[in-house]
Amino acid sequence: MVQATALPRNEAGIEAAIGILKQRFGDRLQTGEAIREQHGHTTTWIINQMPDAVVFAESTEEVAGIVKTCAEHGVPVIPFGTGTSLEGHVNAPAGGISIDVTKMDKIIEVHAEDLDVVVQPGVTREQLNSYLRDQGLFFPIDPGANASLGGMAATRASGTNAVRYGTMKDNVISMEAVMADGTVIHTASRAKKSSAGYDLTRLMVGSEGTLGVITELTLRLQGIPEAIRSARCSFPTVDAACQAVMMTIQYGIPVARIELLDVLSVKAANQYSKLSLPETPLLLLEFHGSDAGVVEQTDMFGSIAEEFEGFDFEATSSAEERNKLWQARHDMYWASHSLRPGAKGLSTDVCVPISRLAECVGAASAKAEELGLLSPIVGHVGDGNFHALPLIDMDSEEEKAKADEFVAWLNELAISMGGTCTGEHGIGQGKRPYLEKELGEATRFMAAIKSALDPQNIMNPGKIVAD
Amino acid sequence: MVQATALPRNEAGIEAAIGILKQRFGDRLQTGEAIREQHGHTTTWIINQMPDAVVFAESTEEVAGIVKTCAEHGVPVIPFGTGTSLEGHVNAPAGGISIDVTKMDKIIEVHAEDLDVVVQPGVTREQLNSYLRDQGLFFPIDPGANASLGGMAATRASGTNAVRYGTMKDNVISMEAVMADGTVIHTASRAKKSSAGYDLTRLMVGSEGTLGVITELTLRLQGIPEAIRSARCSFPTVDAACQAVMMTIQYGIPVARIELLDVLSVKAANQYSKLSLPETPLLLLEFHGSDAGVVEQTDMFGSIAEEFEGFDFEATSSAEERNKLWQARHDMYWASHSLRPGAKGLSTDVCVPISRLAECVGAASAKAEELGLLSPIVGHVGDGNFHALPLIDMDSEEEKAKADEFVAWLNELAISMGGTCTGEHGIGQGKRPYLEKELGEATRFMAAIKSALDPQNIMNPGKIVAD
Repeated sequence: MVQATALPRNEAGIEAAIGILKQRFGDRLQTGEAIREQHGHTTTWIINQMPDAVVFAESTEEVAGIVKTCAEHGVPVIPFGTGTSLEGHVNAPAGGISIDVTKMDKIIEVHAEDLDVVVQPGVTREQLNSYLRDQGLFFPIDPGANASLGGMAATRASGTNAVRYGTMKDNVISMEAVMADGTVIHTASRAKKSSAGYDLTRLMVGSEGTLGVITELTLRLQGIPEAIRSARCSFPTVDAACQAVMMTIQYGIPVARIELLDVLSVKAANQYSKLSLPETPLLLLEFHGSDAGVVEQTDMFGSIAEEFEGFDFEATSSAEERNKLWQARHDMYWASHSLRPGAKGLSTDVCVPISRLAECVGAASAKAEELGLLSPIVGHVGDGNFHALPLIDMDSEEEKAKADEFVAWLNELAISMGGTCTGEHGIGQGKRPYLEKELGEATRFMAAIKSALDPQNIMNPGKIVAD
Repeated sequence: MVQATALPRNEAGIEAAIGILKQRFGDRLQTGEAIREQHGHTTTWIINQMPDAVVFAESTEEVAGIVKTCAEHGVPVIPFGTGTSLEGHVNAPAGGISIDVTKMDKIIEVHAEDLDVVVQPGVTREQLNSYLRDQGLFFPIDPGANASLGGMAATRASGTNAVRYGTMKDNVISMEAVMADGTVIHTASRAKKSSAGYDLTRLMVGSEGTLGVITELTLRLQGIPEAIRSARCSFPTVDAACQAVMMTIQYGIPVARIELLDVLSVKAANQYSKLSLPETPLLLLEFHGSDAGVVEQTDMFGSIAEEFEGFDFEATSSAEERNKLWQARHDMYWASHSLRPGAKGLSTDVCVPISRLAECVGAASAKAEELGLLSPIVGHVGDGNFHALPLIDMDSEEEKAKADEFVAWLNELAISMGGTCTGEHGIGQGKRPYLEKELGEATRFMAAIKSALDPQNIMNPGKIVAD
């Protein structure tokens, strides 16, 4: 496995900064091992590298103050939301200060007429959507986990709704951020579009805390559709399911979600979520629109599915059935683990042009089988993005080596198909070996931007491009 | 008026570079005054600052070679597409080499299954759409002018369709670019979404040639909708029209275009395009979807229009009538000039949150009247973006001073409303005084990025942030 190596520590600086911040924040600065470990990376297979202290910030001014102190003493700053990222984003390979923004959880202002909202970075997507519901509005990006919106912006998250509503890059209008020298900037106005200089908003989205700490977000909202219809359809093969997806997208049917579960995933869902789905590849869908529109969309998809031998096609407007279906989809990460209790899932995240999707998914299944790995696959297939999740016995060096081989092979396959090693999880520590393979010389210019904006390399070091 | 000041020239470097490039390019390097003047900025009121030579490049390798030579000799490089930008983007305030990419006009590969296309930067949007028509595909961004796609990406262009399909930032999947040291990079894979490092694609989109020269673009395509319906509706006041727009957007009606013409613009259109529209504020609309869908959308808009005293609402599915309507809209720049023959139009480009649109448009009209300026207004109102076009007698110092006052006042008003001084034209030379007013400290980080990626400041100097 890719092990995140430790980086040189600035012991004197860290000690000095903690001393100053302790005075300023009192009990809001914590150095206990449990809390520090919880703020290092724990969700997946990457080793935990804990920060030296965790500060619970409550305002932009406080974040700016922390960053200034850290800058003065050359100490790493690692922003922390809900800790649900998957590639070691919150690890502290050189130690330093974790800035926990969960107390910055205010929904500052809803502009219903403009379909936007201003939030603090610790607001979670479920919190926001509960708050908005009465106003007939929602924020569409749904990565599954109840992540913080700051973290979702930082990793350029997306998820099941991206096929219709885009990713965080499309749904952050502007942000406030604290840069490496403590300066607070606003990346853009609140206008829906702008040509005013470099797109700092999009540069910060996906920058994983390596260029600055996000302290406020202005997000684009959607009206809750008049009608929502969900559907499921089984297919004889993954290839047939992917062909149906491709044609659905090509026909311009504005599906709000179109998700693939392979046979292993369907088995896991049946078992974990007590369903009785036919154990063949499955597509789960959702349609948003007017009452007539969603029926029209469903019917169009039905005709396409038929062409590709889809069967057991069921559509419903019942919210209860829909929620059950999507709960099962969102539980897939845990459901997959139930296929092999005690094993650890190693989430891959390739995304390829949709014309290559069937081939890529098929090859991934075959390769896993060849290596003797149990590896269920789910995918946001409308975008060409899927997650193979090899389930590994962490006590077996042989399996770990095979998992390494599988991940490297899959990332390189996706890259060779004109795709990416990460559709939505980000680079963090885990994907660093693949970034240059994917983008070559371009990574040198990423590193130049990093150096220019963070010359001391204190902002979340060891992630994306700079050690 | 904002006069673009000349910058210091590197005479020896320019002479050396031209000598080398002349040998390499022969007749494809031109130094005649007419052609140089044509490659400086001529569309609007900004003074022409011609380059020292124009090279007609035919490949990425040639562009890279030119940039390398210019880098070695410290000579400015100014990319040139169709010269239809409005803010002095192609001026050469420090002299240098204009790289004309109009011969790089190949459509390299259409991936119909992936809904994308790879093009060279000199391909124009009309050329692309003619080419795609038989395949049932189109590229939706339509700024009016038949601009080159490289130029459209460089200025983050948008136009009438942006309300539905977004701007260039949403429709460039990846690009190839020659950076300031001559390195060729690819900013991203062809995957529909990615979290692989900093978003260099979005950084380059809107960078106006100041970070690199775009040599290839992968663009997102749309299927030509099953049905297109256009409509027009007159309103008693601009305010009523804007209220109708706001409600249309809030209701989530997926209008493909929704354009405002104020009374002066309607008069100009009647006169120039031989129409007989009621001379009150007018909305022009277009709906894309299924046969049933566009009728449903039209009807929903009709009900909203009625609420706001809309009248003379006419909808049609006739392509001929639709083309006539949109031709008139696209001719507005010239039509407006016909209101005052001999005058020069000074295009403004503010964009505000839609909740402030009615107020901003109303204030702009009142201010123009107060200053005695004839200033028709058209707007991409679904995005909150509008163009007031004061028509100025360029021989009158008094009028020019008033135009200055108007532009400064309008930009500052938009900024104070949470908007931007430029929705789609870009900063170039003309909007430079307003960028810092709008984004404050953020511009310092833009300048840092510019210095990092172009330390010699040879890439289109004098635009956006660096002299």
